[in-house]
Amino acid sequence: MSCVFCAITAGDAPAIRIYEDEDLLAILDIRPFTRGHTLVLPKQHTVDLTDTPPETVAAMVTLGQRIARAARISGLHADGNNIAINDGKAAFQSVFHIHLHVVPRHSGDKLSFAKGMLVRRDADREESGRLLREALAQLDEATQD
Amino acid sequence: MSCVFCAITAGDAPAIRIYEDEDLLAILDIRPFTRGHTLVLPKQHTVDLTDTPPETVAAMVTLGQRIARAARISGLHADGNNIAINDGKAAFQSVFHIHLHVVPRHSGDKLSFAKGMLVRRDADREESGRLLREALAQLDEATQD
Ligand SMILES: [Zn+2]
Ligand SMILES: [Zn+2]
Repeated sequence: MSCVFCAITAGDAPAIRIYEDEDLLAILDIRPFTRGHTLVLPKQHTVDLTDTPPETVAAMVTLGQRIARAARISGLHADGNNIAINDGKAAFQSVFHIHLHVVPRHSGDKLSFAKGMLVRRDADREESGRLLREALAQLDEATQD
Repeated sequence: MSCVFCAITAGDAPAIRIYEDEDLLAILDIRPFTRGHTLVLPKQHTVDLTDTPPETVAAMVTLGQRIARAARISGLHADGNNIAINDGKAAFQSVFHIHLHVVPRHSGDKLSFAKGMLVRRDADREESGRLLREALAQLDEATQD
């Protein structure tokens, strides 16, 4: 078995479990950004947003929202949370079994997200918008086939 | 009107619209991390994950997934995407009308997420897990009331 999340799901690899139901598992990240950093994953193996059914992604985020709310009222006393899905290697996905991060945050913690070469200003916003609308329409057509 | 996303929804402030339906709006971020950086927001004003109905968050991520897939097949040629909700000021939420980020990524781009004082090792993982499970149970009890 080469997928570590499938191994954890099968009980063949250890993990600290936060929540489990028929379809989903929530475990602590072994290299947490902050204390309580949790991963929500479907038990059924899929890779990323291109092959995971929308219902599954919706269920993942619903559980992620519950965990985020739990982190606030918990003994971890989170002031907020970052929820994230890294979709693809280019987006820093490191385990290719889709998962959603819940990262509990505290006011004034030193974690910073999204540093680096930021565009912050798109030279041709209109064109960027057009390209995305066009591709959405393409997806719609594909769905109707 | 003090909420910029409510103003955009009402048509009182400009935005480049990617998608719109009865409940949701997707617009380009005016300070994009990368080209095509899109925000998905509910037309109905809520603040964060504590007051937004789970159905709304699920609908937001479903649209976010579609936009992520669109970004890959679009003329923006994304290799992947980061999907994120910043839940609360402590998590860098800057507009207090809930929104989901879709950040198209390219292999080798210089954007880095999550730098800073990382825990990466939790001195008491078992305790962190226990605190979260306990809080989830508290939420369950609250729901049953
Ligand atoms: Zn797997
Ligand atoms: Zn608003």
